Amino acid sequence: MVEPALTSDDLTREAVALDAGDPLAGYRGRFVVPDDDLIYLDGNSLGRAPLATVQRVNEVLTSEWAGGLIRSWDERWLDLPVRLGDLIGTGLLGARPGEVVVCDNTTTNLYKLVQAAMAIRPGRRVVIIDRDNFPTDRYVLEGVAADRGLVIRWIDDTGVDGPGPEHVADLIDEDVALVTLSHVAYQSAAIADMAAITEVAHEAGALTLWDLCHSAGAVPVDLTTAGADLAVGCTYKYLNGGPGAPAFLYVRDELRPELRQPIWGWWGRQEMFEMAQGYRPQPDIRSYLTGTPPVLALAAVEPGVAMLVEAGLPALRAKSTALTGFAVRVFDALLAPRGFTLGSPRDAAVRGGHVTVCHPDAGRLVRDLTAAGVLPDFRAPDGIRLGLAPLTTRFTDVSRGLARLAALAD
Amino acid sequence: MVEPALTSDDLTREAVALDAGDPLAGYRGRFVVPDDDLIYLDGNSLGRAPLATVQRVNEVLTSEWAGGLIRSWDERWLDLPVRLGDLIGTGLLGARPGEVVVCDNTTTNLYKLVQAAMAIRPGRRVVIIDRDNFPTDRYVLEGVAADRGLVIRWIDDTGVDGPGPEHVADLIDEDVALVTLSHVAYQSAAIADMAAITEVAHEAGALTLWDLCHSAGAVPVDLTTAGADLAVGCTYKYLNGGPGAPAFLYVRDELRPELRQPIWGWWGRQEMFEMAQGYRPQPDIRSYLTGTPPVLALAAVEPGVAMLVEAGLPALRAKSTALTGFAVRVFDALLAPRGFTLGSPRDAAVRGGHVTVCHPDAGRLVRDLTAAGVLPDFRAPDGIRLGLAPLTTRFTDVSRGLARLAALAD
Repeated sequence: MVEPALTSDDLTREAVALDAGDPLAGYRGRFVVPDDDLIYLDGNSLGRAPLATVQRVNEVLTSEWAGGLIRSWDERWLDLPVRLGDLIGTGLLGARPGEVVVCDNTTTNLYKLVQAAMAIRPGRRVVIIDRDNFPTDRYVLEGVAADRGLVIRWIDDTGVDGPGPEHVADLIDEDVALVTLSHVAYQSAAIADMAAITEVAHEAGALTLWDLCHSAGAVPVDLTTAGADLAVGCTYKYLNGGPGAPAFLYVRDELRPELRQPIWGWWGRQEMFEMAQGYRPQPDIRSYLTGTPPVLALAAVEPGVAMLVEAGLPALRAKSTALTGFAVRVFDALLAPRGFTLGSPRDAAVRGGHVTVCHPDAGRLVRDLTAAGVLPDFRAPDGIRLGLAPLTTRFTDVSRGLARLAALAD
Repeated sequence: MVEPALTSDDLTREAVALDAGDPLAGYRGRFVVPDDDLIYLDGNSLGRAPLATVQRVNEVLTSEWAGGLIRSWDERWLDLPVRLGDLIGTGLLGARPGEVVVCDNTTTNLYKLVQAAMAIRPGRRVVIIDRDNFPTDRYVLEGVAADRGLVIRWIDDTGVDGPGPEHVADLIDEDVALVTLSHVAYQSAAIADMAAITEVAHEAGALTLWDLCHSAGAVPVDLTTAGADLAVGCTYKYLNGGPGAPAFLYVRDELRPELRQPIWGWWGRQEMFEMAQGYRPQPDIRSYLTGTPPVLALAAVEPGVAMLVEAGLPALRAKSTALTGFAVRVFDALLAPRGFTLGSPRDAAVRGGHVTVCHPDAGRLVRDLTAAGVLPDFRAPDGIRLGLAPLTTRFTDVSRGLARLAALAD
């Protein structure tokens, strides 16, 4: 017997029940939500604003900046990059204390780490990356390749499941210095097998550099166990750090003494306030700092991260897979029959925190959907990316948002 | 007949009269000043917080971020780096529209411009900088030199007056690719002759890169007329952008098409949202952007700069030289007799917005002065740096602050 097709109403009833049983539902009240009816499905481009962040930034503005003035550097701000790095690293990335620091943006951090990595593999002239990686990752590698005369070997056509150890194994040899991949693919949300790929890279003597932008705060990451060498990521998606919030970088502790990043600034120097002659890097992760960090933006990162750490990765991941799993159910019922295809893995075990659905008319649909009060992300040429944030997205956002999308495609 | 020595009371009376006649006195009321009795003489390390900035940042937090969410990128934020760049460039630096952009920090911008400059002088292996330049400027050059096998020629022992065209002429030849100097010296406040030094550099075929951190907003800068090639500067000193606020960079328009900066990120690419294969730099100053800029910190820059532009550089410079001139008068009356020496030029025409006084016991004196409610800056080994911000420092801050310093040295 064929099961009767689920209707939009069935799915909405299911979503209401899922919201009622959601142990993380209360967190939404800890964010600034001026329009509760707006259906926000883009929390993986820009996470919502925590109430505590508005309070924290105002404390920085009026008490620490206007009141404390220059004294606040010593009293409050100097250790922010390292303190936030440890909060993110030990709380969400499986890093050890002192391995993560918050500074600059993802692009600049990628640049620093790629240059540093190449310098300790001087005989090797090849780097591996996939064509579907986020543009800035590709462009940074292209820039360093142009500068140093490197060859890029591209992983092509991996489809919805993204690059696996077999793709890396096909391309790797002893000319390869570095393998740069995203842990969660920004389009498909495919989770790469970090441990297996790192093993393939290490067997050939290459280093791995992971982009964690779409992983941090949504997907368990265990850099230490996976043996990852280097990583970067942003804080403005699931970490709710605010638009363009500073990025983080990770350097495996055993590797740090060997590595030297190329942008030698006063924040990376030992005893920076001595302002002495000659650069000597800090003996710790601060050697990856460049110049003065943007305190307002940096301070805004902490409350969101603290909330995620409080909720805990097991609960975040459970809610995340429930949300994406439910989105796939709604896709099957309402979107597949209307000519959409699924641009993300069906298997929750290898799917990150978003779901991409594809349609030839995606550009127009996203414009109309936005006008109808549902905000997804358009990813050219045909992707509609639904970012589902465990602390703020409701199951009813998914059912209602995708019902509107289905209606627009009729 | 010898003029009778001025007493502290005489100087305070003089200061009260100067404050009463100060056409910019009203601006102080447009800043957040929680403690009006605090004597803040460090506005060139961290400028005070404008009231309008607190309001603007809150608008970004609640209306643009929490309310507009991802839509605010298109509607409000995308052009911030360029809009702010033009406001600073055309309003305060004598640049033409499209020559200045706000991004990253001073260190990273220095790095980008030094690398870009070296690449278009490929046969030349020498860079010139002075030993007294700000540490990050020196360290960045050392890093690029280590990377590219360059030789640094150091300008030494220029004293209080800083490097002049004669120092550059002594070292320059056709091996020199780049001359990197500060326009206003961070210790002595000496103003370098930008036009004359640039001429010396250009005659030998070298480029000039100017650090404007201590110039912008306090001293007239005319990059176009001086023929300067490249420049950088921060926005957290006289521009009141907030702690660690993003920096600016300047590239002379005629030079831009030739130059290519090394950090290739998605914000520097044409049609960035196409996320296409292959880096192609923006056809304008945006090619100097790297990754996503920190919006909270960036938005905080605008109100302070707008206020300076409103006050106008002639009025700012007049107040600045009056403040530093008065500080030198107080120095002569109260500090010179107590064993202090002047660490800044006497001639106001070549003195920037701060005055440095030197004392063998400077470290202890700054600690005691801070405890006594007067905040200067300690610059090892013996400098006490008095930053006098035209919009917020009162003449009575100078007279009272230095009277307390004199008392502590007794």
